[in-house]
Amino acid sequence: MYEVITHSLRSLVNFTDDELFSFMQKLKPMRLKKYTCYLKPGQVCHSMVIVHQGALRYFVRNDKGDQTLGFAFEGEWLGDYESFLLKTPTHCYIEALEDTELFMLSYADMQELYNKSQRFERFGRLIAERLFIETAKSKSKLLTQTAEDRYLELLTNQPRIFERLPLALIASYLGIQPQSLSRIRARLLSVKN
Amino acid sequence: MYEVITHSLRSLVNFTDDELFSFMQKLKPMRLKKYTCYLKPGQVCHSMVIVHQGALRYFVRNDKGDQTLGFAFEGEWLGDYESFLLKTPTHCYIEALEDTELFMLSYADMQELYNKSQRFERFGRLIAERLFIETAKSKSKLLTQTAEDRYLELLTNQPRIFERLPLALIASYLGIQPQSLSRIRARLLSVKN
Repeated sequence: MYEVITHSLRSLVNFTDDELFSFMQKLKPMRLKKYTCYLKPGQVCHSMVIVHQGALRYFVRNDKGDQTLGFAFEGEWLGDYESFLLKTPTHCYIEALEDTELFMLSYADMQELYNKSQRFERFGRLIAERLFIETAKSKSKLLTQTAEDRYLELLTNQPRIFERLPLALIASYLGIQPQSLSRIRARLLSVKN
Repeated sequence: MYEVITHSLRSLVNFTDDELFSFMQKLKPMRLKKYTCYLKPGQVCHSMVIVHQGALRYFVRNDKGDQTLGFAFEGEWLGDYESFLLKTPTHCYIEALEDTELFMLSYADMQELYNKSQRFERFGRLIAERLFIETAKSKSKLLTQTAEDRYLELLTNQPRIFERLPLALIASYLGIQPQSLSRIRARLLSVKN
């Protein structure tokens, strides 16, 4: 029934059936209506969530408007990991882009799993390594890449985003105005033809 | 003899003496003369290093000059963790700021330790979590804080940097010119008096 979730967990660590069962028991289901928030500025992110069906957006709102930091689709984890680890209030929003079903894993339950077996500890390490790599890359892209570079990379590495989301959100993720994204797309199309 | 190292390792995980011995056996000593590099752009970072004595600087060089991303002093780990995990060439330099003694831990040896016991796996998870938090914070500071905010935070959280390093390097770490740092310091001093 929850193949999306079990497949996602086993893609990182080869859990036994018993371990997978323990893991699934810790997950608490939640439903979010389209455009409602899982997390808002000032709240502590007490649980990381994994999407069963739907899509989430992770963004900050400042005087330049919304800056979209990331998305999560089926089988992907999301949360403000810094707020989760340090128990500090977040500056971010996490919002459902569609009616979304997700599962929550709390900090206390995660620590309990870590103490249970080495494979859970490995799962935690691999998640932290992935999040580190993602954050380090996006920081270095902010410092070094043009918007066009970032667009082309996104198109290659995450084509799913273009199938599921409106261009205005993709522009916000690339850190540019929707009009700039349209111009980039028009220019690349004319170069291609 | 290596209290700096063993203390640093045990500050993260309560290793047994046997585990600590296994860990120490994997560490390869290296000496770097002042201003020589441990890592240069185009190289893969095959080992993370821990400083036994001395200081290291981690920076990128681009058309805006040197941008200092971090430092490591006694008992602190450094390396391009992204290059280390993905085996991709680095864009960074790691340079000794003083004659420096360090120990290297290779990727293969680290994986071997992870397989040895749960506590090594935990060590890896905690290191990855810390690096993630550091990178996420510095990314969000780049997007949101002024140079003066970053200076005051550094002064509070890492006073050691001001005792050990010249102001020009600290300016480069704050992403500003040395003259701007002098102006910030003069202004804060006049406000204080």
